Amino acid sequence: MAVTARPEVISLAGGLPDTSTFPPESFAAQMTRIAQESSAAALQYGPTEGFERTKRCILQVMGAEGMAPDAEDVIVTTGGQQAIDLVAKTLLDPGDPVICEAPTYPGVVPVLCSYQAEAIQIPLDRDGMRIDELEASLERLAAAGRRPKFIYTVPSFQNPAGATMSAARRRRLVEIARERELLVVEDNPYGLLRYEGEPLEPLYKLDGGDYVIYLGTLSKILSPGIRLGWAVAPPPVLEKIALGKQATDLCTSTLTQYFVAEYFAEGRWREYIESLIGIYRARRDAMIDALARFFPPQASWSRPAGGLFLWATLPDYIDTTDLLARALRQNVAFVPGAAAFVEGRRSSSMRLNFSGSTEEEIVEGIRRIGEVVDEQVALYETLVIREPRPAADPAAPGREAEEAAGGDVLPFRRQAG
Amino acid sequence: MAVTARPEVISLAGGLPDTSTFPPESFAAQMTRIAQESSAAALQYGPTEGFERTKRCILQVMGAEGMAPDAEDVIVTTGGQQAIDLVAKTLLDPGDPVICEAPTYPGVVPVLCSYQAEAIQIPLDRDGMRIDELEASLERLAAAGRRPKFIYTVPSFQNPAGATMSAARRRRLVEIARERELLVVEDNPYGLLRYEGEPLEPLYKLDGGDYVIYLGTLSKILSPGIRLGWAVAPPPVLEKIALGKQATDLCTSTLTQYFVAEYFAEGRWREYIESLIGIYRARRDAMIDALARFFPPQASWSRPAGGLFLWATLPDYIDTTDLLARALRQNVAFVPGAAAFVEGRRSSSMRLNFSGSTEEEIVEGIRRIGEVVDEQVALYETLVIREPRPAADPAAPGREAEEAAGGDVLPFRRQAG
Repeated sequence: MAVTARPEVISLAGGLPDTSTFPPESFAAQMTRIAQESSAAALQYGPTEGFERTKRCILQVMGAEGMAPDAEDVIVTTGGQQAIDLVAKTLLDPGDPVICEAPTYPGVVPVLCSYQAEAIQIPLDRDGMRIDELEASLERLAAAGRRPKFIYTVPSFQNPAGATMSAARRRRLVEIARERELLVVEDNPYGLLRYEGEPLEPLYKLDGGDYVIYLGTLSKILSPGIRLGWAVAPPPVLEKIALGKQATDLCTSTLTQYFVAEYFAEGRWREYIESLIGIYRARRDAMIDALARFFPPQASWSRPAGGLFLWATLPDYIDTTDLLARALRQNVAFVPGAAAFVEGRRSSSMRLNFSGSTEEEIVEGIRRIGEVVDEQVALYETLVIREPRPAADPAAPGREAEEAAGGDVLPFRRQAG
Repeated sequence: MAVTARPEVISLAGGLPDTSTFPPESFAAQMTRIAQESSAAALQYGPTEGFERTKRCILQVMGAEGMAPDAEDVIVTTGGQQAIDLVAKTLLDPGDPVICEAPTYPGVVPVLCSYQAEAIQIPLDRDGMRIDELEASLERLAAAGRRPKFIYTVPSFQNPAGATMSAARRRRLVEIARERELLVVEDNPYGLLRYEGEPLEPLYKLDGGDYVIYLGTLSKILSPGIRLGWAVAPPPVLEKIALGKQATDLCTSTLTQYFVAEYFAEGRWREYIESLIGIYRARRDAMIDALARFFPPQASWSRPAGGLFLWATLPDYIDTTDLLARALRQNVAFVPGAAAFVEGRRSSSMRLNFSGSTEEEIVEGIRRIGEVVDEQVALYETLVIREPRPAADPAAPGREAEEAAGGDVLPFRRQAG
């Protein structure tokens, strides 16, 4: 945080929405109303499950994607991260297998580690998690008499890969969950941030909430600083989540829950999301253009239809963890691909965020990264010409590590500039 | 929550401060200032450890009790409860012994259970944790080759007993920690809410922060609805707490941290605490008077010099968990003593809160509880007269459970009315 917070650094690392787009006068008006009408209540403890009025806002957000859960099945959490943590805390015992994507949301990695789960990462491609690979993994587990406690997925505009699970794979995943009685944890922070194409049905909607636990957040469509997320789960699971929440932080901030209720009462929340969509679409396009211009021909990247991130893959002799140190010296940051793998494997990929910087910053940031990449490519080519690398020596450590990486090189094609 | 939130119920159960005493115009002014001057930043993510400006407020609060930690040793948490949870998450492995008081803060019970600690509860009296009993327990553990991961204590105006650890015991506890190289977790939510007598030095100050991890919160001196607490720990522990926090909720609400900074910038936070002290002292006195008036002669209770709670003990044939069901029918609530014991033992004590209700409500609430207690006393006396209870039958389940309770009957004397 410290390094990327330096003002001279262009950070394409974080998952920051652009909160400068939120109208301060609306913020001030809501807060004044809370102070005048319900100061004492807004400063007091609230129920562990969250306020009913906050849940009604959450139901509106889910309704916009065609979902209609019972308010009783919803628990308000301290951001989407707490929703993930509480589900893991509720369901996992040490050694339990859990399935997630390869690459997966970097923030889920420390959660799975803290509960000592055995994470099994299933590769994804431009259509999301490879369901054939998932089934093969489930078969291997079943042969050993084991089953995953849950399957964690970000089906829409995945963090970090930017991929979206196709309708066919969504249907099949839900079928598999029902056939095998497996829980799926659907994490959907970006579903309403679609920049092109038609919306796809969330897994929760396809399943009806029997086997799908749904996680949402207002971080990307309103504010992450209010720490307001939620989980939707069947009653027996929800009760355990509530007990976990009580032990963890008693309740989510009453003040920020009141703020949410006032904001939704204004009735302009969809308008605000529309404004974000326009801004983020242009930034995504600026990033894709800049990548075509400044990244070497050997690089490839995803072209996400929504969300905040794209995933760029460099020639496999480049380790993006090493590259980050060089990039920071040029005052630019990204998330190295290794962060998206539970075993922290070497990776030649990087996650790039396009929501938190202006178009000009994005172009300049990609230019700086491109420059550092070019240096590495040139250096490699010099070394290769001077001293040819042994082609088939599996003991060569760099090569070995790279082969182990496998799943992190997504089959995204290079986009035309 | 649901039952005690009914408006006709007088709840002496919660740990609610009276947030109606906070001036709404000050709240409105601070929020307007935030909206006008730093809307985008206040709605954005913040550093996991918390903002420097929030930490400066925390240092002021600790300074008021004579402590001066480095800002680098402080991490801002989502309320004091998260501070406890993160310390436990950081330090505990399943089966680890942990020492706490008997009775202990009811909110620490589910935390210790969730990390599968083996809790050892040391009785307290009016001078706080019995240090002789602590040493005996440490000896027993040492004889088995074991040591506690930490000693959890609320030394000042303890929740739930209202007891305050004496200066001599504080010094001895810190000595023991140093001699045996044991960590002490000092939870101090109420230290500044003293209604009489001279302040005592916190364990953190006596120790200098080598063996004492300090936990604080603004819940009782500003607002629990903002969910703002903190932990102070030596750097290696603090780093692990920060990693745990990142996995748990990424960061504490930026909005509420900004609110705190604006509030402290006004420079009237100590004045506000003074006003709370006046209000809560009167409520404590009203509760003690009402107890003398409405509780039977066999009852006893603590007379806390500060904080929010007192602990009342009834004749030992009364189970306060059963009593609560009857009390709720009379629209009054308290916390049954069983909640303050990790093994959930039967208890004839109850925790009574005097900060969250008016003096009139307190008197009426105690009157209603007294009525229900009187019924139980009368019923028992009728039964005893009709059919004398076997005096020395250890197999009688009620009796057995009561004997096992031991430590929860504090040697507080009945106070004069």
